[in-house]
Amino acid sequence: MFSLTVRDHMMVAHSFRGEVFGPAQRLHGATFIVDATFHRPELDDDNLVVDIGLATRALGAVLGDLNYRNLDDLPEFAGTNTSTEFLAKVVADRLAEQVAAGELGAGARGLTEITVTLRESHVAWASYGRKL
Amino acid sequence: MFSLTVRDHMMVAHSFRGEVFGPAQRLHGATFIVDATFHRPELDDDNLVVDIGLATRALGAVLGDLNYRNLDDLPEFAGTNTSTEFLAKVVADRLAEQVAAGELGAGARGLTEITVTLRESHVAWASYGRKL
Amino acid sequence: MFSLTVRDHMMVAHSFRGEVFGPAQRLHGATFIVDATFHRPELDDDNLVVDIGLATRALGAVLGDLNYRNLDDLPEFAGTNTSTEFLAKVVADRLAEQVAAGELGAGARGLTEITVTLRESHVAWASYGRKL
Amino acid sequence: MFSLTVRDHMMVAHSFRGEVFGPAQRLHGATFIVDATFHRPELDDDNLVVDIGLATRALGAVLGDLNYRNLDDLPEFAGTNTSTEFLAKVVADRLAEQVAAGELGAGARGLTEITVTLRESHVAWASYGRKL
Amino acid sequence: MFSLTVRDHMMVAHSFRGEVFGPAQRLHGATFIVDATFHRPELDDDNLVVDIGLATRALGAVLGDLNYRNLDDLPEFAGTNTSTEFLAKVVADRLAEQVAAGELGAGARGLTEITVTLRESHVAWASYGRKL
Amino acid sequence: MFSLTVRDHMMVAHSFRGEVFGPAQRLHGATFIVDATFHRPELDDDNLVVDIGLATRALGAVLGDLNYRNLDDLPEFAGTNTSTEFLAKVVADRLAEQVAAGELGAGARGLTEITVTLRESHVAWASYGRKL
Repeated sequence: MFSLTVRDHMMVAHSFRGEVFGPAQRLHGATFIVDATFHRPELDDDNLVVDIGLATRALGAVLGDLNYRNLDDLPEFAGTNTSTEFLAKVVADRLAEQVAAGELGAGARGLTEITVTLRESHVAWASYGRKL
Repeated sequence: MFSLTVRDHMMVAHSFRGEVFGPAQRLHGATFIVDATFHRPELDDDNLVVDIGLATRALGAVLGDLNYRNLDDLPEFAGTNTSTEFLAKVVADRLAEQVAAGELGAGARGLTEITVTLRESHVAWASYGRKL
Repeated sequence: MFSLTVRDHMMVAHSFRGEVFGPAQRLHGATFIVDATFHRPELDDDNLVVDIGLATRALGAVLGDLNYRNLDDLPEFAGTNTSTEFLAKVVADRLAEQVAAGELGAGARGLTEITVTLRESHVAWASYGRKL
Repeated sequence: MFSLTVRDHMMVAHSFRGEVFGPAQRLHGATFIVDATFHRPELDDDNLVVDIGLATRALGAVLGDLNYRNLDDLPEFAGTNTSTEFLAKVVADRLAEQVAAGELGAGARGLTEITVTLRESHVAWASYGRKL
Repeated sequence: MFSLTVRDHMMVAHSFRGEVFGPAQRLHGATFIVDATFHRPELDDDNLVVDIGLATRALGAVLGDLNYRNLDDLPEFAGTNTSTEFLAKVVADRLAEQVAAGELGAGARGLTEITVTLRESHVAWASYGRKL
Repeated sequence: MFSLTVRDHMMVAHSFRGEVFGPAQRLHGATFIVDATFHRPELDDDNLVVDIGLATRALGAVLGDLNYRNLDDLPEFAGTNTSTEFLAKVVADRLAEQVAAGELGAGARGLTEITVTLRESHVAWASYGRKL
């Protein structure tokens, strides 16, 4: 199995609901370093997993909708705890839509899986992986 | 599949038995940067893999029993080569006991797997993964 | 010249005023990985720059006042752009007060300088250094 | 499952064929930070995945054939796009040959899988994993 | 003293002249992770060292002239060993020209120093610092 | 001012004397990731700070005398707290001797300063810098 990963980041505000979150119930923020990994069993005709330029652009587009936002204000996340692991799924699902829409090129049809990791600090990170 | 990772470290002395270890047969030491990764297929009701505070505390407790020790002196490791890969299993198994004992909270019942990685330097590390 | 550095982090929300900030004028957030470096020309009687436990505790105390906060709500920062470089100075100045108050131990009297670095992402960070 | 990883690097020149590569069609170069990960379900009699010294030497030997080279000049890569993902497979396959030839020691017979990751920058990397 | 650093990278081919370089006399390549650090004693009116967007764009422009190139082919480097330390100076000097030309904004007039670090691998890097 | 840095590591056991050290008074150990930085105002005739191969070999030789050792057993450290900051000075002073002895080549005569950083974990490190 082959994979290719590209990295970008976003800087957001949010708050959590539930006693388990302690002080993180207050409005605070995070830089998420985001690694998007694309998997496939065989390379395409150019010897690639996916065009790295298109992958980087797609990740940038997905993060651009969240970057410099207070996630508490976004209708799509109303009443939702936007935990690191939850956001990993949001990014992975949106990248999967981009793949399906052909935004990562024709060669990307061979992709079989996406994994997204969000690093919230030097001591904590979360991932979500799914089939395509 | 979702995962959450927390990082901590420990600083121990030890020595190895067997010619394969060369100079590492002498008493020496290591800083192990320890990443504990918890896996589960679905998030809990708070949108979490596991409470990050409890996970950090559990990892700290497991490492606290080994930290600032000469592993050669611990009865549980008598006659055992405490290699990086072996210690990864020790940490993973002890974390699994903590999960079973409820130390990571009720939500942690949904965890299905643990992976532990010990980094012994910038050029070498080892992992052990197991089901829960 | 000797130095010792300890690392911790904080997760805050804030917004900026001024066109130069573009989309960062919106409420957003950041994880700041914070490195506090203590300098001195000679080591103390224990062969230390400073007690690493006290240094870590002091840094934790300084960051604890800011962590999980919306900096826009703190009276001390009213009308102030809490840029990464500005916050580096805030942390350095507060650590300097801790040194002066004896919170880092008697040996810390030999410290001559503090440098604080805040990493806001994997591609941007800022520092502030001052004499003690 | 256990794993052990060793890291080394190589510095090569190469160029790509195909419009998808844009400016990378020109002769350019890369430092590849190479992580070779060896997997097995149980440790050997010394409590090891593989002798770390032999693993490091084997990785060094594989990279030594490519290091400080213009890959466009190597007959084995004639007409081939030596993408990061392709090179990950080259390194993994050559390490697999070394394992089969006994270069990683008798204990290495228990290895079941190899994964190789090549980091081409701080924002992009590729992996290839295979059975042994 | 304050500083702000932004990171980018470039991927180049080159070769060296002189026996001291051993196998690096052959045409090979490197990824240089480039950190550009801007220094000044006081912040500007926006509480900034320099506009991070303009700094990133300026660094990108400087690296864009070298990226995906064989440095041996560039007239400006004819007969020159483009060592990591030499390239650090090239980048720093070109950034200094951008500052002087106003490309980093009016506020950048307060900058007093630039340091540029090029990381050629995980085990070697070089820096050059100069006054403005 | 130019600088060049090379990285290596050592794995040692040791213990400390003095209540300030708490549990670190027990025999324990550390991996020290060691960065040796060589400074000079102008490059040599090959456009180098120092031959990177010779610098790496010199650092390896200095660390080789300490690696896989219990520092408490070395006569040269009898009754001495081998703190991270103290060891940074030991490494820097021994590298300075190597420079003076011509082990880093004739070009190394232009070196004016050495800085050595020892990273004991992902959250703590120490440095020592001296003139040559």
